[in-house]
Amino acid sequence: MNKKDTQFEISRRRLISGAAATVGGLVSAPLVAAQSNPENLPPNVSEWTPYLGDGVDVNPYGMPSEHESHVIRRNVEWLTASAESSVNFTPLQDLDGIVTPNGLCFERHHGGVPEVIPADYRLMINGLVDRALIFTLEDLKRFPQTNRFHFLECAANGGMEWRGAQLDGCQYTFGMVHNVQYSGVRLSDICREVGVQPSAKWVLAEGGDSAGMNRSIPIEKILDDCMIAYSMNGEALRPEQGYPARLVVPGWEGNMWVKWIRRLEFGDMPFMAREETSKYTDLMEDGKARMFTWVMEAKSVVTSPCPEKPMISKGHNLLKGLAWSGRGKISRVDVSLDGGVNWNTAQMHGPVLKKSLTRFTLPFKWNGEELLVQSRATDETGYVQPTIDALQKARGVNSIYHNNAIATWLVKSDGDVENVRLG
Amino acid sequence: MNKKDTQFEISRRRLISGAAATVGGLVSAPLVAAQSNPENLPPNVSEWTPYLGDGVDVNPYGMPSEHESHVIRRNVEWLTASAESSVNFTPLQDLDGIVTPNGLCFERHHGGVPEVIPADYRLMINGLVDRALIFTLEDLKRFPQTNRFHFLECAANGGMEWRGAQLDGCQYTFGMVHNVQYSGVRLSDICREVGVQPSAKWVLAEGGDSAGMNRSIPIEKILDDCMIAYSMNGEALRPEQGYPARLVVPGWEGNMWVKWIRRLEFGDMPFMAREETSKYTDLMEDGKARMFTWVMEAKSVVTSPCPEKPMISKGHNLLKGLAWSGRGKISRVDVSLDGGVNWNTAQMHGPVLKKSLTRFTLPFKWNGEELLVQSRATDETGYVQPTIDALQKARGVNSIYHNNAIATWLVKSDGDVENVRLG
Repeated sequence: MNKKDTQFEISRRRLISGAAATVGGLVSAPLVAAQSNPENLPPNVSEWTPYLGDGVDVNPYGMPSEHESHVIRRNVEWLTASAESSVNFTPLQDLDGIVTPNGLCFERHHGGVPEVIPADYRLMINGLVDRALIFTLEDLKRFPQTNRFHFLECAANGGMEWRGAQLDGCQYTFGMVHNVQYSGVRLSDICREVGVQPSAKWVLAEGGDSAGMNRSIPIEKILDDCMIAYSMNGEALRPEQGYPARLVVPGWEGNMWVKWIRRLEFGDMPFMAREETSKYTDLMEDGKARMFTWVMEAKSVVTSPCPEKPMISKGHNLLKGLAWSGRGKISRVDVSLDGGVNWNTAQMHGPVLKKSLTRFTLPFKWNGEELLVQSRATDETGYVQPTIDALQKARGVNSIYHNNAIATWLVKSDGDVENVRLG
Repeated sequence: MNKKDTQFEISRRRLISGAAATVGGLVSAPLVAAQSNPENLPPNVSEWTPYLGDGVDVNPYGMPSEHESHVIRRNVEWLTASAESSVNFTPLQDLDGIVTPNGLCFERHHGGVPEVIPADYRLMINGLVDRALIFTLEDLKRFPQTNRFHFLECAANGGMEWRGAQLDGCQYTFGMVHNVQYSGVRLSDICREVGVQPSAKWVLAEGGDSAGMNRSIPIEKILDDCMIAYSMNGEALRPEQGYPARLVVPGWEGNMWVKWIRRLEFGDMPFMAREETSKYTDLMEDGKARMFTWVMEAKSVVTSPCPEKPMISKGHNLLKGLAWSGRGKISRVDVSLDGGVNWNTAQMHGPVLKKSLTRFTLPFKWNGEELLVQSRATDETGYVQPTIDALQKARGVNSIYHNNAIATWLVKSDGDVENVRLG
């Protein structure tokens, strides 16, 4: 390997001069630069090494380091009327891999988070079924189980950009998505248990929150891959994610994943709930609205660099991002550093799963020039994530839902990053 | 479907009589039994429904429901001399899927949890290399990244059972294992960067904690699949798991996964560290000790039923468990309900990954008879998890490490479950 090509030439020079110490493979070389060693510890001893640390009895349920206190969900007060009917955002820019930690999964409520007592929880199944039944939580846990990773994305994720607002940051622009492993009961198994009648074509899913959130779902989707989940990432659902049970509607807009679910009614037509008529429809240029646009189409985001993650070093760097599709697996992600002129195929990291976030990375060199960073996802159906121009040509600019357009981060020569629009 | 075969006949009868209400597909049927409705709420309204819940600004980093406060890591005070050199256990019996939430990953420390300041963190590489280098955390994050799910198991997991002690519970008997997705740098990439010399055959991995934990690792393993991880389940490593960086040694005993890692020294022979000579060796019948027994062989556990999860209902039930192997993927899990006379192949849940926990389940019917529940894992190399008799015939009873024998839960007719020994 050619010495002048080593990736960390810069850091090495900086460290050697900064620490005023030779680094030559000697055990006695200091690990910490002299200026950050106020107690004049002996060589090869970090400042934290001489002290006994906390024992195992400190946190029976552990928490992140206090040095990671910036990695939190964030909301903006002006966006909604009250905190009980509001949203916060996942800090995608600080995450790696495909798992969103439960404490960082974005929240969207319409009537706040009810405190549901698990022993009193009931799920009622009624309507066009042979045997209307009520299940306790323990009943649900006796069914055969399914375990699957799925992304959940709010239909309004990135919605401000339809009319040109460029929110500051990856978290506010893309953070209404998370990805966890769900464990629970297939609705096809519940349907078999209650005996769904042939005339049943739609299901009303109803939540136990004060908003009584409800949505209509076609029976084909219910039988295909929907589930009642009671666990996320191994442990019980978090309160804000529907504890103790929620509906999982893989690949479809988050609003349908009814939380604190208390009832499924089988009917022969859609129920025309508020959230599928006055809301969660896509207003077109001609004044008509698209209804029942459930699928979240293929989308992607570069999570580093991004406005919260400026470039700090020239030379070798790592670009990171996430891609997902409501129609199946991501088959390919391309990345452009010059606003869509040239594209490089990114490396995808396993496991690549259906209707799940997929991690991609691209090692690249930065010489301090301006970059226009974009990513473009392709899914296994062949669908390619569109430009914002192409998307708006098809749909106009009136909607706030289903923006899956390619986004652009402008990397400036000083390393700062801005969210910009580039057709 | 035959009505008398429906899975929830029992629950249905119980609910109908308990709630003193007809359940006939009517929207007006109560979701909550009358006796748990002190405010006489109208039908179809749960007691929590009329109230606005918490808003999104309550927990920027979310926490589990207070009704899940029993799902915690637990330690036993008598096991070790102090909390700084101790262990706690993952509550496997309360988990689903394959992800262990970061807050529930078991801890094992030898000198407590140091508080490492990420800006002051350094990783030094020295010894038989062309370019001894010191990396900052930001340097490590500029390398190409790998993202992989791996189990980490303490070599002493289940160690009390070598001499016949049957600890009470799944958590204490099996809970020194967890499974997360790690993100970080392949050591093969770091080796290329520093230019490892042909004479380098072993690597000393050294931690920055007050115990100066260190272990020798053969160069073949380092180049095969070891990594320096800085993230677990998407977010920064937790302090007790080595924040901000640890060694990941897939499939090998947890003690080698050096936390708060500060140095890798390349040498031409093993370094004979304390933790690979006086500890973490397997004392045999003849007084000699097996050294460098790194691989965690195939193992499994039934997590429900288990001592903490008694049987509460007759009829249809779901048996759940976890299997893993340090040599690759789990290829099959068999379950016996009669102490190893008859075996049923369990369903494995995806994704099934190399050197990762694998979830399995088996639906079964319980009529109230005694059961002797066992699980037996087979990995992709053809290795089959042994009985305790077979294991002790080969290794004697002096060791406290590497017990991967088939375990037995006795389910009594009242549903209670005990940890018993069955050869």
